[in-house]
Amino acid sequence: MASELYRLTATEISAKIKVGEITVLDYANSLLKRIEARDDAVQAWAYFKSEYLLEQAKALDAIPSAERGPLHGVAIAVKDVIYTKDMPTQFNSPIYAGDAPRVDAGSIAILRKAGALIVGKTTTTEFAATTTGPKTRNPHDSKRTPGGSSSGSGAAVGDCQAPIGLGTQTGGSTIRPGSYNGIYALKPTWNSITREGQKIYSLIFDTLGLYARGVADLELLADAFALQDDEPAPTNFAVKGAKFALLKTMVWPQVGSGTTAALDKAVSLLRAQGAEVEEISFPSHLDDLPAWHRSVLNSDGRTAFLPEYTVAKDKISEQLVGHVENSDQISRKEQLDAFDNIAAARPVVDKILGKYDAVLTPSVPDEAPLGIEKTGSAAFCLIWTALHTPVLNVPGFKGENGMPIGVSLVAPRYHDRRLLAVGKSVGALFEAEGGWKRSV
Amino acid sequence: MASELYRLTATEISAKIKVGEITVLDYANSLLKRIEARDDAVQAWAYFKSEYLLEQAKALDAIPSAERGPLHGVAIAVKDVIYTKDMPTQFNSPIYAGDAPRVDAGSIAILRKAGALIVGKTTTTEFAATTTGPKTRNPHDSKRTPGGSSSGSGAAVGDCQAPIGLGTQTGGSTIRPGSYNGIYALKPTWNSITREGQKIYSLIFDTLGLYARGVADLELLADAFALQDDEPAPTNFAVKGAKFALLKTMVWPQVGSGTTAALDKAVSLLRAQGAEVEEISFPSHLDDLPAWHRSVLNSDGRTAFLPEYTVAKDKISEQLVGHVENSDQISRKEQLDAFDNIAAARPVVDKILGKYDAVLTPSVPDEAPLGIEKTGSAAFCLIWTALHTPVLNVPGFKGENGMPIGVSLVAPRYHDRRLLAVGKSVGALFEAEGGWKRSV
Repeated sequence: MASELYRLTATEISAKIKVGEITVLDYANSLLKRIEARDDAVQAWAYFKSEYLLEQAKALDAIPSAERGPLHGVAIAVKDVIYTKDMPTQFNSPIYAGDAPRVDAGSIAILRKAGALIVGKTTTTEFAATTTGPKTRNPHDSKRTPGGSSSGSGAAVGDCQAPIGLGTQTGGSTIRPGSYNGIYALKPTWNSITREGQKIYSLIFDTLGLYARGVADLELLADAFALQDDEPAPTNFAVKGAKFALLKTMVWPQVGSGTTAALDKAVSLLRAQGAEVEEISFPSHLDDLPAWHRSVLNSDGRTAFLPEYTVAKDKISEQLVGHVENSDQISRKEQLDAFDNIAAARPVVDKILGKYDAVLTPSVPDEAPLGIEKTGSAAFCLIWTALHTPVLNVPGFKGENGMPIGVSLVAPRYHDRRLLAVGKSVGALFEAEGGWKRSV
Repeated sequence: MASELYRLTATEISAKIKVGEITVLDYANSLLKRIEARDDAVQAWAYFKSEYLLEQAKALDAIPSAERGPLHGVAIAVKDVIYTKDMPTQFNSPIYAGDAPRVDAGSIAILRKAGALIVGKTTTTEFAATTTGPKTRNPHDSKRTPGGSSSGSGAAVGDCQAPIGLGTQTGGSTIRPGSYNGIYALKPTWNSITREGQKIYSLIFDTLGLYARGVADLELLADAFALQDDEPAPTNFAVKGAKFALLKTMVWPQVGSGTTAALDKAVSLLRAQGAEVEEISFPSHLDDLPAWHRSVLNSDGRTAFLPEYTVAKDKISEQLVGHVENSDQISRKEQLDAFDNIAAARPVVDKILGKYDAVLTPSVPDEAPLGIEKTGSAAFCLIWTALHTPVLNVPGFKGENGMPIGVSLVAPRYHDRRLLAVGKSVGALFEAEGGWKRSV
């Protein structure tokens, strides 16, 4: 039914457009109806103009078949910390209210050339750097946060207002909303996708993140961004006989009952399919990884927000003023020790991860908390952001209040394609048997 | 004489403006005359509009004294890979010809708020990533290259068309033009100054670079950018009794007679002043640093130039196409090993450097070569770019053809202010006794 096109994945829509079953305009109209119906409840958009969506769709329909790109007509929601030459980029900051630099981020240039339909800009916490939520609500319960800082992209994809969303992650800003909104979220290997035109918080941590409601859609994006491992990824990865590990990490004391149950169930499901699952832990010399992440993050914030601090100190939040003024008094020695210790940890952790088809670890402490003031904890994600490894949030489980909970699959750096292949089979299992079903 | 104001340093000009001896417009008019007189010979500018320079100057003069920033009226030449909201940013790429995103880079936002007069955009090699020279000529000999990729900023400052220039460095793009043009060049510690709005080649190497004709001017900029070491820098650093080292590095076989003579003289001058100078070398396990830099650089280029490759492959140079297509077939393993090996080297080298007040090392193999087609070798610089250490090119020496040659002073990461303090005293000595005198 044309009016329900919005529910389809990018892969499904792309196939329909390719064979001429529908036009991009049909699709855009369906998305538009969905957005109009749901915007009051979800409020995922920082900038959205229906006329412009339809105008883009018509322009795409006018392109001759032979000249169409691989993402022709695929709708993409863009976090509002990523430049788009035709829409404002406002960072949820009063300093940039209405600001519209005429430039596309590198990621947007690639997607646009591939034929993507840029739906609009999605809400974010201030500069994707704080945990103070924007107006956006969780599509599965409007009393709860969609997480952050990629709040709008996570909610829009979770609510079928777009099949694909772009987020970013410096702590847990992609994976956390992925779990809270019941969608797939890929934080690829650091710097495997260009960050040109994406607001800087920490150069060594910031990563573009990708959202979708199916792994095949993430593979479409991985193709567009030319993600490539050394070895070709398996096709039809078999869970039977595969080798997984469960890694609770040094922040396990922060876990809640929802994630504990999700991981228990995940392990049981994998074992029931004939996979091995071993419990492992980080070597104890890495216990301070979260503290190292914090030292580097705050010190990098000192550099990153000096422009805004200089221009309008009174218009940035206290946390960012604190970064610039180094209110935690982090010395350069402490900053560099943290930077170097994390760097030394990367190959050590790659080696551990490399022994398994994937390593399971929490995405979040629990289901999305009540309230939209705070976007939740990044504790379980920031370790992996620091380590540069690819992480895939796989949905399928639910918490005590029926909200979605995902678990993370992790692989060594530049094993993104392999991780997606593994995640596709694991995701099919978790979505079928994990207990949570998408109901929006 | 008002007409010779262009010859003054930023510090000198700033003082004159502060006491009302001259206006910013007086100064701008002097710069304008200099630029008009010399532009045919040097061709440092990718974008320059005299009317706009004067308009900015008038606007600055209209600001009441109490509201003036610390760089009020200080003229700055900006490399054309750094966004300026009021001028085009074209990267010496046909893809971006005439392109003018309405956004200031983070560094520009800070300088503009401090009262800087943005003179114009200076030439660069394509995306600051190749060694194919732009139109610019060395101000000391128009048959020779000013170096690259910060060709225009180096030449403009060397030619007194601006007292301050912004460059960038990924290999040797700041330090090399510093040496070739006979000026001070600071490559600060990586990420100590925001790179927001500065074209990406390699996230882990790219660094904003600063040019001036005196260390006091670099200190003005260091203040504006809030560069801060753990320990306060010495005032009036005494060469007598100081401890230096000479480090020829693993690429010493590439040195020419000019730099050999410059370093010999530098060492003699320091010793004659009562400093100790010890010859040291890198530990042999770091012999592959240049190869590691190359593996990371090319792999990062694979990510960085995918947007331009996707949009207009036929409009980027073969080298960049090669990066994106990975024509050197660098595996992810090789890339990560190089990345991790460099990371492990950083604290090792900091420790070595930390034993001295500064370490002397070549800036370039020799004086600026003949021809403007190629911008020269970055061999001696790229090691330090990879290591993230601050490097200061100190002018004062000359080559066989009378062209300027500088030597580099290096310090551990986040000892930028100390390096400037040491460089001020060392620079005074080298400029007085090194044998080269500025004649433009």
